[in-house]
Amino acid sequence: MKMLINGAERVVDDALRGMAAAHPELVVDAENRVVVRRDAPVAGKVGLVSGGGSGHEPLHGGFVGPGMLDAACPGEVFTSPVPDQMVRAAAAVHSGAGVLFVVKNYTGDVLNFDMAAELAEEDGIEVAKVLVRDDVAVTDSLFTAGRRGTGGTLFVEKLAGAAAEEGAPLARVTDVARRVADASRSFGVALGAPTTPAKGSPTFDLPLGELELGIGIHGEPGRERRAMMTAGEIAEASVGAILDDLTPTGPVLLLVNGMGATPLLELYGFGGEVIRVLRERRVEVARTLVGNYVTSLDMAGCSVTLCQVDEELLRLWDAPVVTPGLRWGR
Amino acid sequence: MKMLINGAERVVDDALRGMAAAHPELVVDAENRVVVRRDAPVAGKVGLVSGGGSGHEPLHGGFVGPGMLDAACPGEVFTSPVPDQMVRAAAAVHSGAGVLFVVKNYTGDVLNFDMAAELAEEDGIEVAKVLVRDDVAVTDSLFTAGRRGTGGTLFVEKLAGAAAEEGAPLARVTDVARRVADASRSFGVALGAPTTPAKGSPTFDLPLGELELGIGIHGEPGRERRAMMTAGEIAEASVGAILDDLTPTGPVLLLVNGMGATPLLELYGFGGEVIRVLRERRVEVARTLVGNYVTSLDMAGCSVTLCQVDEELLRLWDAPVVTPGLRWGR
Repeated sequence: MKMLINGAERVVDDALRGMAAAHPELVVDAENRVVVRRDAPVAGKVGLVSGGGSGHEPLHGGFVGPGMLDAACPGEVFTSPVPDQMVRAAAAVHSGAGVLFVVKNYTGDVLNFDMAAELAEEDGIEVAKVLVRDDVAVTDSLFTAGRRGTGGTLFVEKLAGAAAEEGAPLARVTDVARRVADASRSFGVALGAPTTPAKGSPTFDLPLGELELGIGIHGEPGRERRAMMTAGEIAEASVGAILDDLTPTGPVLLLVNGMGATPLLELYGFGGEVIRVLRERRVEVARTLVGNYVTSLDMAGCSVTLCQVDEELLRLWDAPVVTPGLRWGR
Repeated sequence: MKMLINGAERVVDDALRGMAAAHPELVVDAENRVVVRRDAPVAGKVGLVSGGGSGHEPLHGGFVGPGMLDAACPGEVFTSPVPDQMVRAAAAVHSGAGVLFVVKNYTGDVLNFDMAAELAEEDGIEVAKVLVRDDVAVTDSLFTAGRRGTGGTLFVEKLAGAAAEEGAPLARVTDVARRVADASRSFGVALGAPTTPAKGSPTFDLPLGELELGIGIHGEPGRERRAMMTAGEIAEASVGAILDDLTPTGPVLLLVNGMGATPLLELYGFGGEVIRVLRERRVEVARTLVGNYVTSLDMAGCSVTLCQVDEELLRLWDAPVVTPGLRWGR
C-alpha cells in the first residue's frame, strides 16, 4: 500500500509538525505529543483533555480550540498515548478549576488515563474522568472490555467543551459529559479494511462482495459479515441496531461519519437513507453532521451516532466552536 | 469495488436528497440538480453560481451559503452539468444585480456555461464569467484545452463570494474572481486511481511502487509516472512545479488538499513538508487550509494550491463564510 509519508516510524511526528505549521492558533508540542489551545490555561475555566491512538483524525487533535478540547494527547497509530502526555496536557490547561479527562473505552486508554489522573492529583490538579462507550455493536473485543468508544466522543467533547467555555465548574462539566456519553449510541460498518503505516497492508481481509457490520475504529472485528448491502439496507441495519438499545424520547443529534476512504458523495447518499429510516421510526433529528470526523485511516465505511438531547444540550451544541475539525458561531 | 450506494445510476440523486435532509439551510432541488442558499435571491447582491461534475465534494454544492456561492449545479459523476441547470440556478439567485458564473476549465463545463449565459441573458439576467485554470501540470488533456481548473476554484469561490456578500457590484466581483483565478496555481499527485460508480473499477492502473505526478481530478493522465517518493520529495516536486510558473511577490494562501482516500494524518505530515519547502523558497504563507476540499471520489493522493494575495484579498479570505464545507466567522 502506498502512503503519503516519509517513513512509517515518522508518521505521527510529521503530522504533528504539519499541524503546528498549519495552525498557529494551537501550541503543538510534537516532541512530547501534546496539542494545546494557544490561550491555555484560560483563567477560571475547567480544562478539557482527551487523547487516544492516532489515525482517527480530526479526532482528537483537530478538536482542540475554544468551545471544545483544551488539549489532546495523540498516541502512535491505533495505540494509546502514555500517562506522561496526559499529565503534561493537564498541567498545560489547568487554571485552578480542575481538569476533565474524556476517555474512549479502550483498555490502554483507560489504564493510562487512570494513572495520569493519579499523577496529576499528586501535583495538586483536581481531575474528573468520563468514559465514552457508545458503540452498540460489540461488548467485548480485541481491544476493550465493554463497549468501545467511537463517534459519541465528538458529542461529549463538543457539549462538555461548550459547558466549560461558558465557565461551568468541574462538577457541572463532568455531569454534562456523563449525560452526553450515556445518551450516545453508535454503529459502524466497514466496506474495506484500514492499512496502518507499520503493517503496510490491510489489517483484515474483506472479500469483494462482503461487508462487516458493527466494526470498530481500529480494524478490529465487527458483529457479523454479510453479503454486500445497499446504502438503504446499511442505514436500516445501523439505525436498527442503535434503536434496539436506545429509545429516544426527544430529539437527537445525528453524526453520519465517514471512516476515511468513502467519498463525501456516498456519505450524503447514505445520510439521506439514515434520516429516512429515523423518520420512519419517528425519531426527530435536531441537527445533522455529515463528514469524516472519527476516522480509521483509509478504511472504507461509515458509522452512525445518535445522541439524545434536551434543550440545554441542544443549546451547547449550537454554541460557538473554533477548532480545525469543527467550527461555527465565530 | 464496493460502494456505499443504492445503485450507480442513483448516486448523484441520492446524495442531493441526503444534502437536502442534512442541510435545511440550503434549498436542494434534487430533481433539477440545483443547490441554492435558502435566502436567495438576496436583494441587491450579485449571484455567484458554479458547478461541474460530481465526485469532487465538498466542491461545489458544499460551498453554497453566505459568503461563498449562491448556487451550484452538480452534473453526473465527472460529467458536466447541462445549461438548463445553470439557467435555473441563475434565475434562482438573480436579484437584479447580475450573476457571475465560476467555470472550471473543462471543455464541457465551458461550452455549457457559455450556452447558459446566452440563455440567461435572453431572460434579462446580466451574466459575467470567470474561467479557472490553475493546474500547472498539463496544458492539454483528455478533457481540456488549456490548463485544467482544480483547487484554485475554492479560492475564487471564497474570495469572490466574500466580495459579493459585501455588496460589491458585478464588475467588481468579476474583477476579484479574475484576479484570484490569475493568481492561483495547483499541482496534484495520485497514489491510486479513483473508482467511478458507473465503471466500478479504478479509472487507471497505477502499480504498487509508482505514483503519478501532475494528475487531474477526473482520473485523467498526469505529467509523468515515477517510482514512489517520500512526502518530502512529493512536496518538493509539487511546490517546485508551481514556483516554476508563479513567482509570488507577496504572501500566499495555501491549500493542502486531499483527493479523497488519503488520511488526514498523512495530509498534515505532507502539509508540514509543503510549508517547509515554501519557507526554504522564501514564500510567505499567510493562511493554510489542510483537508479534503476538491476531491476525486476515493482517489488516494493530494494537491497543493497557492494563491498570491494582497491585503484586500486576505481580508476577503478572512471574511465570514457559512457553508457545509467551509465555515468560519459566524
